[in-house]
Amino acid sequence: MEYHISERLSALKPSAIREIFKATADPSIIPFAAGNPAPESFPVDVVRTFSAEILQNDPITALQYGITEGYPTLRSLLRERMKNIFHCGNKEDELVVVSGAQQGAELAAKALCDEGDTVLCEDPSFIGVLNAFRSLRLRIKGIPVEDDGLDLHALEKALQTENRVRMLYIIPNFQNPTGITTSTEKRKAIYALARKYNIIILEDNPYGELRFSGSNLPHIKSFDEDGRVVYLGSFSKILSAGLRVGYVLGPSIIVQKMVVAKQGEDVHTAMLPQMIATRFLQWDGFPAHLEKIRALYRQKCGKMIAGIQEFFDPRILHTNPDGGLFLWCTLPKGVDMLAYCRTAIDKGVAVVPGSAFAADPVASSQSFRLTFASPSEKQIHEGLSILGSISLS
Amino acid sequence: MEYHISERLSALKPSAIREIFKATADPSIIPFAAGNPAPESFPVDVVRTFSAEILQNDPITALQYGITEGYPTLRSLLRERMKNIFHCGNKEDELVVVSGAQQGAELAAKALCDEGDTVLCEDPSFIGVLNAFRSLRLRIKGIPVEDDGLDLHALEKALQTENRVRMLYIIPNFQNPTGITTSTEKRKAIYALARKYNIIILEDNPYGELRFSGSNLPHIKSFDEDGRVVYLGSFSKILSAGLRVGYVLGPSIIVQKMVVAKQGEDVHTAMLPQMIATRFLQWDGFPAHLEKIRALYRQKCGKMIAGIQEFFDPRILHTNPDGGLFLWCTLPKGVDMLAYCRTAIDKGVAVVPGSAFAADPVASSQSFRLTFASPSEKQIHEGLSILGSISLS
Repeated sequence: MEYHISERLSALKPSAIREIFKATADPSIIPFAAGNPAPESFPVDVVRTFSAEILQNDPITALQYGITEGYPTLRSLLRERMKNIFHCGNKEDELVVVSGAQQGAELAAKALCDEGDTVLCEDPSFIGVLNAFRSLRLRIKGIPVEDDGLDLHALEKALQTENRVRMLYIIPNFQNPTGITTSTEKRKAIYALARKYNIIILEDNPYGELRFSGSNLPHIKSFDEDGRVVYLGSFSKILSAGLRVGYVLGPSIIVQKMVVAKQGEDVHTAMLPQMIATRFLQWDGFPAHLEKIRALYRQKCGKMIAGIQEFFDPRILHTNPDGGLFLWCTLPKGVDMLAYCRTAIDKGVAVVPGSAFAADPVASSQSFRLTFASPSEKQIHEGLSILGSISLS
Repeated sequence: MEYHISERLSALKPSAIREIFKATADPSIIPFAAGNPAPESFPVDVVRTFSAEILQNDPITALQYGITEGYPTLRSLLRERMKNIFHCGNKEDELVVVSGAQQGAELAAKALCDEGDTVLCEDPSFIGVLNAFRSLRLRIKGIPVEDDGLDLHALEKALQTENRVRMLYIIPNFQNPTGITTSTEKRKAIYALARKYNIIILEDNPYGELRFSGSNLPHIKSFDEDGRVVYLGSFSKILSAGLRVGYVLGPSIIVQKMVVAKQGEDVHTAMLPQMIATRFLQWDGFPAHLEKIRALYRQKCGKMIAGIQEFFDPRILHTNPDGGLFLWCTLPKGVDMLAYCRTAIDKGVAVVPGSAFAADPVASSQSFRLTFASPSEKQIHEGLSILGSISLS
């Protein structure tokens, strides 16, 4: 039969990254494309111990329905950590658990934006969240990114000229896909602009704990005197991506609406994963574990940059991330980026075409995203040597 | 600051059941209100064993991102089970895993309905899914329920007179909240009407495995020659509600759109819960476990009906479910149902006012929902004795 597909989904294609991820299930392909954290970053032994203890000591809580807001102990621990370490959250704020930070972004947009409202974002930005906005029929307006974050002039111009701007979506640390970090000055300026033009900032920080170079910068949420920042945190890159545990810290009025929206989606985040995340935060090895994964990514990113310098035509530009999982390469003008990416796949190396991350899906791009997280060091060397052999002419 | 809350959520209140559930966290309240499965129904020991084995043998799969469609082994097992035991699913159909059947209902509506489209449902029906529809700004038109399921005349009339009807949402087995089962004749007639008026049937079957009396009836999906039935299954009532694992079996074209929508929500269902569900299906004790929980609910439901007959004024009508978790009581005309429910809470017994389940949230109701799943047998006896003591005049 013929199906009526909703307008909100009929134009939306499956995420290019998720599709490439499926293609890279082939273990012979060098995985520079996926957004996966390094498998060796998962604290497998302690998760096994935590899980066994939870199912021994408190199995019914792990297997029974929980409240939508999340496991109370986890909420308090995260709330304290956000306050004590990151100086975020006041008495007007509430912290709730979500099934990954992506769900937090979707719920925030669902609570705050009507169809046709505009969301500003870095351009390029994370395709998963952009698609969530598209599925809510929001307009997305991309703002160019400079080496230290958003182009502030372009941001202010958009705030002045775009219709019904409700929200700015931003990944200030080691941004996906570029690896770029927003400077402290720009964080302050962005908050001031949000205040001037009365919009909400949706601050997505999945990679913030993965800084392997330089010093931590303040979260935009830490400047939030008005209650206009909704902060998204995640366990995906420090504990496990497959457990699907993230959290939202934002003004209670907004967060409570997000909870209502979450009741209509997955009711609550799975309890056993939430309880494992709780034990992980309580674990006395937690700080050392974070240091260990930072060292891992420092090493792998260093190998990737060394390989780029060794193998790539110097006309290919690349970012130098201080953390996270990704770096961003830009081909010289005149080179056909999509053809380059197709050749790479044919030669056994998967990279993500930059156009996948564009705010405007039909905009042209000269860039592609590389991850150093998933490949082994040997694969990094080999993959870059293959990419370096692709002719640019 | 003042917040702009989206139109889709500004009218939506937190689910009355979720709120009552929070209230009943007080262990001194007798829990006739919650929708929780019986804690003694969870196969705690095997979950502990499965979890340990998964985290020993395949920890990276359990902790890494998975594909949105779900864990492949789980998908194949469910697909085979649906085919072999329930005669559901053909080559045009696809089965994917979701984070609970509730998410499946939300994704189906998101994929198939635009704002302002009409969904028909049993009246009363499951508030969680009704609220999911409301959050998508769908019109909900309730169809009265008789002892053997939907009033077919009212259904056909609604199909003739309501605007833009896309879908019928139905829980054919031991319906929530009434406990009523749709007869085989009515299942066939409903499918024929869906065909005649070209709508989709969303068949939600969370309680189907919990039949403790009578014989299994065919799923509406088993009649589906056209590809117009989207079937929702769940592990919440046979394995664990807190693991949040459900599934959807429906026409590929629809299911693939639901997958795109899921990418924008929680990306994929948590892997460790999916892998535990997989082992649960493979477990040779699975059929005996199902028999065990059916016996448990048979016993508890029997106690509840005996208690009603012992303590209740005979003018209070009640359903006699053949399975599931709930039964439905109706007070005589003239009794103030909400006052009755408030008195019950004051006396330490939580029940859910029937109005919570009404398709039209301002419609009046004389009914309330009782569950026999959560309370112990002692609590069932005690709680019904308390309810019986409430004056109806």
